[in-house]
Amino acid sequence: MAAPSQPDLATRVALSARDGRATAPVLAWLAERAAVTWTRAERIPLEDMAGWVTEPGTGNLRHHTGRFFSVESLTVSLPGAPVPAWTQPIINQPEIGILGILVREVDGTLQCLMQAKDEPGNPSGIQLSPTVQATRSNYTRVHHGRPIPYLDHFRDVSPHEVLVDIRQSEQGAWFYRKRNRNMVVEVDADVPVLDGFRWLTLGEISALMSVPDLVNMDARTVLACLPGGGAALAAAADDDFSAALVRSADPTAASAHWIGDVLSWITEVRTRTELRAALGSLADCPDWTRADGRIVHRDGGFFSVVGASVEAVGREVGTWCQPMLEPVGVGVIGFLVRDIGGVLHVLAHARIEPGYADTAELAPTVQCVPETYDRLPVRPRFLDEVLTSPRLRFDTVLSEEGGRFLGARNRYLIVETDAEVSPDDPEYRWLTVAQFEELLRHSFYVNIQARTLLLCLRSLIPRG
Amino acid sequence: MAAPSQPDLATRVALSARDGRATAPVLAWLAERAAVTWTRAERIPLEDMAGWVTEPGTGNLRHHTGRFFSVESLTVSLPGAPVPAWTQPIINQPEIGILGILVREVDGTLQCLMQAKDEPGNPSGIQLSPTVQATRSNYTRVHHGRPIPYLDHFRDVSPHEVLVDIRQSEQGAWFYRKRNRNMVVEVDADVPVLDGFRWLTLGEISALMSVPDLVNMDARTVLACLPGGGAALAAAADDDFSAALVRSADPTAASAHWIGDVLSWITEVRTRTELRAALGSLADCPDWTRADGRIVHRDGGFFSVVGASVEAVGREVGTWCQPMLEPVGVGVIGFLVRDIGGVLHVLAHARIEPGYADTAELAPTVQCVPETYDRLPVRPRFLDEVLTSPRLRFDTVLSEEGGRFLGARNRYLIVETDAEVSPDDPEYRWLTVAQFEELLRHSFYVNIQARTLLLCLRSLIPRG
Repeated sequence: MAAPSQPDLATRVALSARDGRATAPVLAWLAERAAVTWTRAERIPLEDMAGWVTEPGTGNLRHHTGRFFSVESLTVSLPGAPVPAWTQPIINQPEIGILGILVREVDGTLQCLMQAKDEPGNPSGIQLSPTVQATRSNYTRVHHGRPIPYLDHFRDVSPHEVLVDIRQSEQGAWFYRKRNRNMVVEVDADVPVLDGFRWLTLGEISALMSVPDLVNMDARTVLACLPGGGAALAAAADDDFSAALVRSADPTAASAHWIGDVLSWITEVRTRTELRAALGSLADCPDWTRADGRIVHRDGGFFSVVGASVEAVGREVGTWCQPMLEPVGVGVIGFLVRDIGGVLHVLAHARIEPGYADTAELAPTVQCVPETYDRLPVRPRFLDEVLTSPRLRFDTVLSEEGGRFLGARNRYLIVETDAEVSPDDPEYRWLTVAQFEELLRHSFYVNIQARTLLLCLRSLIPRG
Repeated sequence: MAAPSQPDLATRVALSARDGRATAPVLAWLAERAAVTWTRAERIPLEDMAGWVTEPGTGNLRHHTGRFFSVESLTVSLPGAPVPAWTQPIINQPEIGILGILVREVDGTLQCLMQAKDEPGNPSGIQLSPTVQATRSNYTRVHHGRPIPYLDHFRDVSPHEVLVDIRQSEQGAWFYRKRNRNMVVEVDADVPVLDGFRWLTLGEISALMSVPDLVNMDARTVLACLPGGGAALAAAADDDFSAALVRSADPTAASAHWIGDVLSWITEVRTRTELRAALGSLADCPDWTRADGRIVHRDGGFFSVVGASVEAVGREVGTWCQPMLEPVGVGVIGFLVRDIGGVLHVLAHARIEPGYADTAELAPTVQCVPETYDRLPVRPRFLDEVLTSPRLRFDTVLSEEGGRFLGARNRYLIVETDAEVSPDDPEYRWLTVAQFEELLRHSFYVNIQARTLLLCLRSLIPRG
């Protein structure tokens, strides 16, 4: 019988991860691309956005075609939480898009076809992006633009070519139930490489993770879903941290909790949380006002909704307008990690966000914008430890989706700790890297910030 | 380090599954219980139900407290389907209840604490039920009834006691996003046994699966989530079917598709399906009319919504009224199974139901009420093969949740086939029993009818 399988995927990923750590050629190529393709976004009043209307009555922002996305309000009730009820603006984009990376194998090494791509909200221009980022509006051609290169490879696939194919959520504080299909598809080595695309090994991308604002959010989420290569082909570790990290990526290593306990804890959180979230009218958003062509919180916190007029060179459509969400401040997103019995564990937080498809997802230990907490009655657990610990293993500012967010940046941190957390803490559990990877085969367990940090953590695995 | 795990659970389940196949003592006990505890439901007009109101304007049926559940309408759009749009009555019960079975180990054998329980909609009285069936209204005591026995064992659990803890969906054609928490919790052997409860081995329950209308739906769904014991301790099979079935339950056996391909197919179905489902007013349900105290479809098909006046002896509350959904006809629910390379495979169908939390779930090969298809433009694929094949392995009528449905019965069938199905058929895939069990660790992959059939199929595994 045919029994197709991918038993060797972990090894193939590991082989690619140890190939090529030099970043200079890639950075030179990106600089070259930046000279021929760029995006320029100018802030304009919301009422001046061509193609967009403020809906009479509701005040919601939507495209005149009714497609793409809209900005509405979300009224949230979360009994028992420090802030038990609020209303906020939110992006509603119910379509499921495709974030896809093509891979090929050359001389036994996997390579990813990455794209040098600018988005209007990127803080510093071109970023390393997946082969394809396509909303359903994109690929059903509402834009009336040029066809999307390589899209067909993701729309009509044979089973044996698919290495990753799973829907994952995005920011649940800014998007209402946004989900994208994260895909990795293997192709023959002779697929032509168009301008603006380049084959990179996982090792090359790994090394680029510590360059600020370089690997874009969409590339990070897709790569996080690719099994990390486990302990296969890890180099002999010359320090305790590296040795514990290698063991953490090994599915056979001991863990603080068996996976059934982790799943039961997630079930418990999702069952006990009585989250209610209802879309409504931006006009009925008490703490938010629309003035001077933008929507802002009454004390200037959280984020604002602004208009952008975008001019793009080297993109499918030359100019357009759109609303964007512009966050206040730079976020802090951190994993506390700890050696437990020789195996590195990550302290996962069961985080509730109103826009999640399923109430709660596993999030980083810390995920917040510190300034915001000047306005709220609580200070996030573990924030001070993440910010002040000297045992820093990773520290890079990366930016979020530049197609919807304007200059959204987070400082991603991985910090060693000796913190003790009760094994039945209602909100936190110690997980190994291998356990995260098991959960990442399924939708909506691991949030987008934790997916990025997992990728950062795996970039620290020593390879020969 | 502590590394709690349940590595031996499959073996423990298998040991219990081969213990005790004699059904007579259990049937005698159930008959005894039927003499002291019963429920009587009398049909009454919807407008005569004490405690229930028809909401002015919407026509929706709800309890005067606003709790328990309501009957509303659901407007569905499913472009491209044979019936691309319709509106129907539906039960809206957003609370997540608990379906729980306590287990203990005596002399190395797991035993389940089962309850002899009647529900108003049961076609023939008492059924074998889980230790606990509790809606959130139940356990927060909206009923003002007696406390629910054993409930505390499921509300405050230590991690090492939990064998199963996962939310699963129920009928997506009759319930709007109904989910219950399916739990199996292990306790010390000396938990007292109250009247109406009895410890049974998995082997005893297995043998009772072929008694019509005996093992209730809630017990079936919980037991299906318990790992089936795999091939551990299977007896030497003396025929090809049994041998292939034993191999199918072995996670190391070859399968027609690797699990990544199965997950990608589910992702594809959930992504391509543009299902829209919106709750609304029963008053705006074009093909349905409320007349003579009930709500019926204009040509008498599908189901009706009726009022029931219930009198219970031996239950927490003596008398109450409630609406119930009364289906038309007896459903046919069948697995086609086939030996592929010596391993039994089940033909799973990716089924879309408007009330599912996530668009589509894996369902039996066939799941329909044949009469209904006299009214619809298509005949279900494989229905005729399931109904006429001589290679019948299981054939028992079982009933669905008697707390909401009045006399809802389905004929559950397992039939051997030689049918060929294309490996990239958009709607069907061959799965092994072990693959179903892997998916059952997570929510919303396997629908409630398939969970029942999986349990029926596992009851055929020969044990020494």
